[in-house]
Amino acid sequence: MLISDLLDSMVPVIQAPMAGVQDSALALAVSSAGGLGSLPCAMLDEASLRSELDKLRASGDRPINMNFFCHAPPVPDREREARWRARLQPYFAEYGIKSDEIPDGAGRRPFSHEIADVLEEYRPAVISFHFGLPAPDLLQRVKAWGTSVLSTATTVDEACWLEAHGADAVIAQGLEAGGHRGMFLTKDLTTQVGTFALLPQVLRAVDVPVIAAGGIADGRGVAAVLSLGAVAAQVGTGYLLCRETKTTPLHRAALKSHGARHTAVTNVFSGRPARGIVNRIIGELGPICPDAPDFPLAATAVTALRERAEAAGSTDFTPLWSGQNASGCREISAREFTGQLAAYL
Amino acid sequence: MLISDLLDSMVPVIQAPMAGVQDSALALAVSSAGGLGSLPCAMLDEASLRSELDKLRASGDRPINMNFFCHAPPVPDREREARWRARLQPYFAEYGIKSDEIPDGAGRRPFSHEIADVLEEYRPAVISFHFGLPAPDLLQRVKAWGTSVLSTATTVDEACWLEAHGADAVIAQGLEAGGHRGMFLTKDLTTQVGTFALLPQVLRAVDVPVIAAGGIADGRGVAAVLSLGAVAAQVGTGYLLCRETKTTPLHRAALKSHGARHTAVTNVFSGRPARGIVNRIIGELGPICPDAPDFPLAATAVTALRERAEAAGSTDFTPLWSGQNASGCREISAREFTGQLAAYL
Repeated sequence: MLISDLLDSMVPVIQAPMAGVQDSALALAVSSAGGLGSLPCAMLDEASLRSELDKLRASGDRPINMNFFCHAPPVPDREREARWRARLQPYFAEYGIKSDEIPDGAGRRPFSHEIADVLEEYRPAVISFHFGLPAPDLLQRVKAWGTSVLSTATTVDEACWLEAHGADAVIAQGLEAGGHRGMFLTKDLTTQVGTFALLPQVLRAVDVPVIAAGGIADGRGVAAVLSLGAVAAQVGTGYLLCRETKTTPLHRAALKSHGARHTAVTNVFSGRPARGIVNRIIGELGPICPDAPDFPLAATAVTALRERAEAAGSTDFTPLWSGQNASGCREISAREFTGQLAAYL
Repeated sequence: MLISDLLDSMVPVIQAPMAGVQDSALALAVSSAGGLGSLPCAMLDEASLRSELDKLRASGDRPINMNFFCHAPPVPDREREARWRARLQPYFAEYGIKSDEIPDGAGRRPFSHEIADVLEEYRPAVISFHFGLPAPDLLQRVKAWGTSVLSTATTVDEACWLEAHGADAVIAQGLEAGGHRGMFLTKDLTTQVGTFALLPQVLRAVDVPVIAAGGIADGRGVAAVLSLGAVAAQVGTGYLLCRETKTTPLHRAALKSHGARHTAVTNVFSGRPARGIVNRIIGELGPICPDAPDFPLAATAVTALRERAEAAGSTDFTPLWSGQNASGCREISAREFTGQLAAYL
């Protein structure tokens, strides 16, 4: 089915895939309200992916968007990793962590033929990619299933590139959005623009359908981006307090606090720019730290620190992902929230 | 007249005051289409201000918004000025400028009782301030004329402060906006958020009417911010190519170029963060240069350089003010453009 026909038949709300805070439960709740739920798959191994796919299949045949990263795997750089751990050493000392006992590696895999082998059996209706698109042969394999392919653009140039390379629709991700910036043609953060500026320019530049993301937190916001010409709104932050998420109590408390008004785009959690609520590590090492290893390697050492700090009740080292507009967060079911997002349509 | 009643009686479009690129001609053209034209007054001496006020009065009694800055006058810092000129020295050498022949001082005055003495006779319907509000006695003097007072907020905290200190309406300036950021309670650029995130949060936080600014470049954009709850849209960049502006041919060419897609918030032109198209000086010294003297002192040395470079046809040192969405710029009359902005209402 064409993505435009698919979205026309649904509530034009896509729940943004949010790795680390949700699984199929959220996606299914959104889908039960007629929206397009998403499953973030970048941190799942094959067994977990299969288990989630089975849950989705058992729950009916509503379309779900499967989300994958397609970053180039990083080349480990021992010197940079050493500089990074040296920057973190004072914090390690605070929590009694031995830097040399933290294992190497990080758990975010790019999309691959091995993953496609698992997916092939399920033929998902929609797959969205972050950080560009996979290699042409892999993309063609996915498209041959009849799967609609979405990917994220943070600039007009990226939108044109995605259209030229086979994306069926483009998600225009304004600077307001929480979590990882989808940027893949540039590392220059000054190229990143607000939704109000990005959406009209992307709509003028491409012929494929455009989905708006960034700062959309309520029904009026959804109606506004549709009136600007988007076919759908992608909403992430607004879902973070919904009952079907796995958002931790610490993260929930941060989202409900006054501090949620102050977010920053930082690379200290993963090595790639991502927006979260400003906390101690962002303030002290960031927002952008040149010593952070390439994505996703920076995460390894920070995750060790985060786990120890969270156990002590601290969010000093936690990625408190949030967009610039957490004011729409509601502690209700995702089904009800999706209905509210569609209230002005 | 209450600002809400005034705006209700008009096309809900405010032409953003743009010092250096417009005078009363643009304000009057916008007002002739039923919108609220604005006159930037921060760079006018008293004689010029009086002359412009006389032109406005002679053209009828439609309301016009008079715009002033209310920054604290800077304390000159000889060492910083010397560091700044040292940073600029290679460029001075390129253009044969002798650094010690550039006079001190800069031409942007904060609002004052002397200016109020001139205005009192004309009693403008609307005055907007940038960088906060004037001292309480001065603000009360203006409000006693029946003048509606607007000011710009770039954060929720600033919006609440403005409401508490007597602003009759707040302009929520998203990060997309061109020219000077109105920020006055913070210097931290990570506090600056996109229009889609700022507007709903400001609307929830204050009771005064809210005007949206930043990235709004066409009729759909105006309709979208009104649907989000704004009483009016303030549009700047979109007017920059209109016939009634004084936008230079070099600035016009830049706005029409592919390069207009890439802007940055920089302090190199004036000492305060402002958004313009990325050019040589932003790329080489900025976007944020810690050696730039306090606003508006940084402008003195750069203006000398700019004039010489522009005479040679170069925009390397020109503040090419633009928001993140120059795609709405049209080389038509401001009257016609204002009509297009109102087309979806």
